[in-house]
Amino acid sequence: MSASETRQRIVDVADQLFYERGFEATSFARIATDVGLSRGNFYYHFKTKDQILDAVIAQRMEQTRAMLAAWEQDAASPTDCIRNFVHILITNRAEIMAYGCPVGTLCDELAKLDHLAKDDATGLFSLFRDWLRRQFTRLGREADADALALHVLMRSQGVATLATAFRDEVFIRREIASIEAWLLAQCPVGSPVHVYQPA
Amino acid sequence: MSASETRQRIVDVADQLFYERGFEATSFARIATDVGLSRGNFYYHFKTKDQILDAVIAQRMEQTRAMLAAWEQDAASPTDCIRNFVHILITNRAEIMAYGCPVGTLCDELAKLDHLAKDDATGLFSLFRDWLRRQFTRLGREADADALALHVLMRSQGVATLATAFRDEVFIRREIASIEAWLLAQCPVGSPVHVYQPA
Repeated sequence: MSASETRQRIVDVADQLFYERGFEATSFARIATDVGLSRGNFYYHFKTKDQILDAVIAQRMEQTRAMLAAWEQDAASPTDCIRNFVHILITNRAEIMAYGCPVGTLCDELAKLDHLAKDDATGLFSLFRDWLRRQFTRLGREADADALALHVLMRSQGVATLATAFRDEVFIRREIASIEAWLLAQCPVGSPVHVYQPA
Repeated sequence: MSASETRQRIVDVADQLFYERGFEATSFARIATDVGLSRGNFYYHFKTKDQILDAVIAQRMEQTRAMLAAWEQDAASPTDCIRNFVHILITNRAEIMAYGCPVGTLCDELAKLDHLAKDDATGLFSLFRDWLRRQFTRLGREADADALALHVLMRSQGVATLATAFRDEVFIRREIASIEAWLLAQCPVGSPVHVYQPA
């Protein structure tokens, strides 16, 4: 592997471990072992677990930006965009029932640790928040677009936390249907704004 | 201190540390130090951190049961009961913005650790769920009382997670008002069921 491939591999393995086990529960040594690198080679890339966390958050930011841009490009309407977001909860239900939402649980853990990176982790939420706000703005809801964006984000987080606790797929599907009904009530189908408008 | 007072003090200190720093981030040694006990005296009560966790969860169960029973006794109506529950988010907003919801964050952390006590922690959610379900049943909503209970619980969890991430009190108050409006729409004031009925 080239140096950049090795670095990428470390970040991918750490990202998975931080998500599945938690940041605090994942040791620097465990990441090195899972990547299968000598200590010297590993230290060449990262000196501390906090440096790895920074790289993981930066990568998640980049991946999230790309995902949201693709949704906006492919969806037929802002409503479909928002629906795509909400449907992550169904697509990723197995992981969410096992480990929670990757964003919400990281923010919660870093808040408790009063970690320097806690606001960077909140930046992941801000990406979704800004993107959802833009969709509601495109739907003609400029005045309360941010409140609507936070409301959708809030419901997705609530569903994720209870999905982890109760591991109940029927609950997830019922609440997604409820968010979709709420969404249509905000922005009725067939209304002039329910068509694609470039951002 | 008597032996039972010492034990109680250990559980209280651990409860606070698990909440404010996380279970994994709190060492057995840190709990002993904060309690100010010799190792011998400490081991007399607890041999492992997992034993302390069991005691913390048991105590939270007992305290939650007592709180819910008191609310049910004191509130003028089932709607007021549910409102009391929702208002924890405002009463405890400082702690929630700093450390999240004590129940949700514990469940999320223990799920990631695949900890033996994870279902016991979910038991805390179940206490709220069963109690909320009873309130909705008293309001004449037997048929979907459980779904309504989970919906309220879901929204409270979503608000808590975003409150921790964004530390925005205006958001908390807006979402609480929204839950209250939803609640009144479910169970209109002045309807025959909006009166006190003993459980």
